[in-house]
Amino acid sequence: MSRSERMPKGSEAMFSHGYRTTVGARLLILVLSPPCCTTLSCNVENACYPLGICAERTAIQKAVSEGYVNFRAMAIASNTEDDFIVPCGACRQVMREFSRDWDIYMTKPDGTYIVKTLQELLPLSFGPEDLKKF
Amino acid sequence: MSRSERMPKGSEAMFSHGYRTTVGARLLILVLSPPCCTTLSCNVENACYPLGICAERTAIQKAVSEGYVNFRAMAIASNTEDDFIVPCGACRQVMREFSRDWDIYMTKPDGTYIVKTLQELLPLSFGPEDLKKF
Amino acid sequence: MSRSERMPKGSEAMFSHGYRTTVGARLLILVLSPPCCTTLSCNVENACYPLGICAERTAIQKAVSEGYVNFRAMAIASNTEDDFIVPCGACRQVMREFSRDWDIYMTKPDGTYIVKTLQELLPLSFGPEDLKKF
Amino acid sequence: MSRSERMPKGSEAMFSHGYRTTVGARLLILVLSPPCCTTLSCNVENACYPLGICAERTAIQKAVSEGYVNFRAMAIASNTEDDFIVPCGACRQVMREFSRDWDIYMTKPDGTYIVKTLQELLPLSFGPEDLKKF
Repeated sequence: MSRSERMPKGSEAMFSHGYRTTVGARLLILVLSPPCCTTLSCNVENACYPLGICAERTAIQKAVSEGYVNFRAMAIASNTEDDFIVPCGACRQVMREFSRDWDIYMTKPDGTYIVKTLQELLPLSFGPEDLKKF
Repeated sequence: MSRSERMPKGSEAMFSHGYRTTVGARLLILVLSPPCCTTLSCNVENACYPLGICAERTAIQKAVSEGYVNFRAMAIASNTEDDFIVPCGACRQVMREFSRDWDIYMTKPDGTYIVKTLQELLPLSFGPEDLKKF
Repeated sequence: MSRSERMPKGSEAMFSHGYRTTVGARLLILVLSPPCCTTLSCNVENACYPLGICAERTAIQKAVSEGYVNFRAMAIASNTEDDFIVPCGACRQVMREFSRDWDIYMTKPDGTYIVKTLQELLPLSFGPEDLKKF
Repeated sequence: MSRSERMPKGSEAMFSHGYRTTVGARLLILVLSPPCCTTLSCNVENACYPLGICAERTAIQKAVSEGYVNFRAMAIASNTEDDFIVPCGACRQVMREFSRDWDIYMTKPDGTYIVKTLQELLPLSFGPEDLKKF
């Protein structure tokens, strides 16, 4: 299965459950490989705004709690029609914890997408291998 | 099945997968009702410490991403033998988003536990119903 | 100077600068002792909601960055007229890092207030002295 | 005053107070313009790791709480000798809230540094102007 076939289907899977979000639904499919598996996610808000969490981090935490740590790609989907949806800086750093080599698919509801590596989205980054330097 | 039978089994289920945490393993079972279902969780750390997340929040976010929002109880388990494991203030606030009426089971590896309501653990709290006052 | 004279003046000092917040202005005066000094603070929001921060944490971080760590009391003020403003669970945990013995003054714009110890607001808590147990 | 004269002095100002951090001291000088002013900052850790905060965010929150929002440059200094210190993804997003046009100076204790714009450090970003699209 090629990359372009595999990932942008996130848009189609969206809105499958009833949890409403204030800033617009955002949902993603996280692809792990191997083994190949997918994770549905959404942002989870809080009346204390800083205690909310983005869909991207929810997906990763969910997968890690199931024992997966070898991530390869993530597709992010939303109902925002004008722009490709991009991850926030905090989510890029949480991705970075596990690899520099993610492919990040940023989609639109019409099925079009752009793809970047995490290294392109978070250049000059640090990760767990740098902690021993402190 | 009574509450006291159902929850403290968290301790037994621990350490089932290989993700290592720095500050000691912490794992929980989240009970949703109805329907009755459970969620395994763990804390997910980050080289940038503030971007880690506690097991309690991972569990809730995971359940919400599956469409569950009616929570009733949470059991928290760890390998800390001397004290009952307690949730941090941030996790208490994330629980509060969904209800004031959680029962929180705080356990030890030997199977003993204490149980408190969220209202006891986070008195004088605010939640989503208070946002409209601002 | 007695406690009751010192703290609830927070309400009067509010709204002194132009940074607008979405969820209603919230500002506090943090009292350090000794030496006695005060810190003005506000919440700092972000387009990525989880990256915002509450006024209470801003105040503590600000004071710590100036070298203060011996906190004794905090007054929280807002323009919410119907309820005494309370700190979120995350802010209670950040207070807990430094002491269990804070007095927290929760005020209304009319100058009335209630006061609780941190131990009352975050019972059964853990702090830095517990980390060595893991 | 040229950029290169103004910023890398952060290294010299470090370690001026006693708050100890686990992952190595990190301190920065935030330059606002106009008016030109500087902010000293440090990371503030927590026994609940996710409730700590980086020095970069402390600096911004501190400045915002004083009424400053027109930021132009930040210098980050640490005692890590081998690498230029870089901001985490979350801090890049918090910088992004205020501008795309920051210059970020990443220094070493020996006074050498590299400088990048925020747009280089956080490409394909979103900010407060994008919220109205949701």
